[in-house]
Amino acid sequence: MASSDSRQTKFILDESRIPRTWYNIAADLPVAPSPPLHPGTGQPIGPDDLAPLFPMALIGQEVSAEREIEIPEPVRDAYRLYRPSPLYRAHRLERALDTPAHIYYKYEGVSPAGSHKPNTAIPQAFYSREAGVRRIATETGAGQWGSAMAFAGALFDLEVKVYMVRASYDQKPYRRILMETYGAEVVASPSVTTEYGRKVLSETPGNPGSLGIAISEAVEDAATRDDTKYALGSVLNHVLLHQTVVGQEALEQMEMAGEMPDVIVACTGGGSNFAGLTFPFLGRNFREGAGHRIIAAEPEAAPSLTRGVYAYDFGDTGRLTPLIKMHTLGADFIPEPIHAGGLRYHGMAPLVSLLKEHGFIEARSIHQRASFEAGVAFARAEGILPAPEPTHALRVAMDEAIAAREAGESKVILLNLCGHGHFDLASYERYLQGSLEDYEYPTEKVEAALAGLPTV
Amino acid sequence: MASSDSRQTKFILDESRIPRTWYNIAADLPVAPSPPLHPGTGQPIGPDDLAPLFPMALIGQEVSAEREIEIPEPVRDAYRLYRPSPLYRAHRLERALDTPAHIYYKYEGVSPAGSHKPNTAIPQAFYSREAGVRRIATETGAGQWGSAMAFAGALFDLEVKVYMVRASYDQKPYRRILMETYGAEVVASPSVTTEYGRKVLSETPGNPGSLGIAISEAVEDAATRDDTKYALGSVLNHVLLHQTVVGQEALEQMEMAGEMPDVIVACTGGGSNFAGLTFPFLGRNFREGAGHRIIAAEPEAAPSLTRGVYAYDFGDTGRLTPLIKMHTLGADFIPEPIHAGGLRYHGMAPLVSLLKEHGFIEARSIHQRASFEAGVAFARAEGILPAPEPTHALRVAMDEAIAAREAGESKVILLNLCGHGHFDLASYERYLQGSLEDYEYPTEKVEAALAGLPTV
Repeated sequence: MASSDSRQTKFILDESRIPRTWYNIAADLPVAPSPPLHPGTGQPIGPDDLAPLFPMALIGQEVSAEREIEIPEPVRDAYRLYRPSPLYRAHRLERALDTPAHIYYKYEGVSPAGSHKPNTAIPQAFYSREAGVRRIATETGAGQWGSAMAFAGALFDLEVKVYMVRASYDQKPYRRILMETYGAEVVASPSVTTEYGRKVLSETPGNPGSLGIAISEAVEDAATRDDTKYALGSVLNHVLLHQTVVGQEALEQMEMAGEMPDVIVACTGGGSNFAGLTFPFLGRNFREGAGHRIIAAEPEAAPSLTRGVYAYDFGDTGRLTPLIKMHTLGADFIPEPIHAGGLRYHGMAPLVSLLKEHGFIEARSIHQRASFEAGVAFARAEGILPAPEPTHALRVAMDEAIAAREAGESKVILLNLCGHGHFDLASYERYLQGSLEDYEYPTEKVEAALAGLPTV
Repeated sequence: MASSDSRQTKFILDESRIPRTWYNIAADLPVAPSPPLHPGTGQPIGPDDLAPLFPMALIGQEVSAEREIEIPEPVRDAYRLYRPSPLYRAHRLERALDTPAHIYYKYEGVSPAGSHKPNTAIPQAFYSREAGVRRIATETGAGQWGSAMAFAGALFDLEVKVYMVRASYDQKPYRRILMETYGAEVVASPSVTTEYGRKVLSETPGNPGSLGIAISEAVEDAATRDDTKYALGSVLNHVLLHQTVVGQEALEQMEMAGEMPDVIVACTGGGSNFAGLTFPFLGRNFREGAGHRIIAAEPEAAPSLTRGVYAYDFGDTGRLTPLIKMHTLGADFIPEPIHAGGLRYHGMAPLVSLLKEHGFIEARSIHQRASFEAGVAFARAEGILPAPEPTHALRVAMDEAIAAREAGESKVILLNLCGHGHFDLASYERYLQGSLEDYEYPTEKVEAALAGLPTV
């Protein structure tokens, strides 16, 4: 399959090569994950605890130990709208960096919603529909996840209600309009449509909202309506599972390119993008000792993997979710308003946290000016304008490529370009004008938030 | 090559299938085109008249009669960043319309600039660079062409200066920032950096600008600087030529799909998008009597093909360009501010006009509310959010598919989805809110503009 053309730029799979199964890393983990706990009892939660929020098929995936989980045909059929996504060799970026390294990027911005998020929004919509659900409630911060869920809802004829963080709702109308064009209902959170929202608004009128508040509203909405389930865009095992179509395709595409990555980089907010690209390669590490070095790139303003503690904590600030064992900066910690909205999260997926804690992956934190610098260099070399989130991975990949030049050694680098930046141009303008700020690691705020960690 | 999977959605070509030549329809035309005339002498212009504005390689292509013109390897290499573009079968739209018709769309939104425009921006940048040019001056209305030229300039290390119509500059900052991210300099037109701009501003301070004014500024910039050439994104023969990569790929992809289009639809502003998709199929009509029905979709607010006169006219309102024989609403006619900015042009490419005049193609005009209705239906079925321009083609294609249902007959329809609408969401919001207006055909304004047609 390897190309004889040394300038080949895109490695493209026919849609018959869309994976037929998701890869479940739980089957290959050398260490056992810690179960989620009920916050009231401190005991492991069971399927019945989650049934009000999720269809049973997804709860089953959440706890499955099967290595391969079949992708239903209607999901594969919807994936055809944009999958397999292309793998690119970044020839022009390599030349711009004058590096002997080979840089490859998997590009998920080809999805209609513009990021990797539909990879899980589609199956979540499908399983909900199969379970007789008519309506999905979810939250969104910057709008990537809400767009994906609105798109998936349109495909499976589901009503979608999106609680969008008030600050983003006001600042990013385009993302809201995209969701509405797909037919979703979008309200600013905190809203008057939930009890929790009304409580917040009565205590703090004009509250700009947060992802934690929006999660609490969407959870309440789903828990109090029989026709409605909740959908989450990251963190949970089944969400990470769905994203493994990305890494499975990348593995096959790297085989087409005739080489395997020495280093694999992906950005991490909740962890699903990182898991999607890297878990199939980590499986090779575990099963075959493949030796891929794997690096999580996170923002200096919310560096849960590099600076957080590994402990049981809540997934939301409202403390409604189960307790999960993860790297956390404290559920009360609200990161500074960096432009990579998808990385502004206090915690990390339990599976990604476990891998970091046991040394199977590395993590590196990046300031936003350095990440935007990488994004602009990338756009000028490769054309694609990256979303602010994957510019963190780009920064790490470019630093690795520069190190390879300085060491005079070849190296194969693979990164995940998980979305385009067409809705993020205001942040590029701030970078180009020199008015983009870096935020130092907020030691005191994190210490205060960690002081509130639940005791288990 | 035909697929055995009846649900196949995307027909994808390997990048080795990027065309090696552009298709020059001049070689197959059964009627002779009328030459451009010098506005002073009324005589046909020669290469020397154009030399201050364009590199000689492009002037040669403008007048070539060769059927196939080789695409230089550096251009093909840059095309690899996004070509070949995918051809989709719109299974979900067909189901939504309950039509027996097969609907295919060629999707050019995969280019980094988001439209078909880089197909000609790249060769224009390449030939300029080859000719020793350091700098390109161009204009842009809504920003699609400016983005493409800025991207192409980054690839070939050219300075790019974009005169952006003031109204768009103020209303569409994202397009401006995208150009700046690629490294281009963008000024609002009318500007103080040209003599013509200063003249306009002194006569009408606060002038919101027009494409005609911006063209005049860019032409003056290029004509008065030795290191600078001018670049245009449509209308001219060589621009249409470069776009034929679209139709050539589509022909091969339709062969993969195992059928040929009965009807081909593309939207027309200056004509390059329409030409790109349809000329290779028209070539089959001329050479083999293939019998493809070909329809140009234009806005009711600027219906040059359906309502204009076929006459010699200026390409710009400033009356600086050569006189070209085309369907025109008069060079002084400024269309109402419909949201399909790329279709707001008083004239039409001479080659497209010639084909319409002699009955080789049809034309249909569309109101913007009907086109946005088609765009929203398409987004909900297929996921991709179309730019306002190709929703005109979508409207015609959907009407053809509905007619096929009503007649109970099968039909194969191909259309060009020439760009995404990520920078056009404000117009979708107006449509969804019901506040988008239709503009009736402006009979009196056109009559007034046509009264000023030059006498030849």
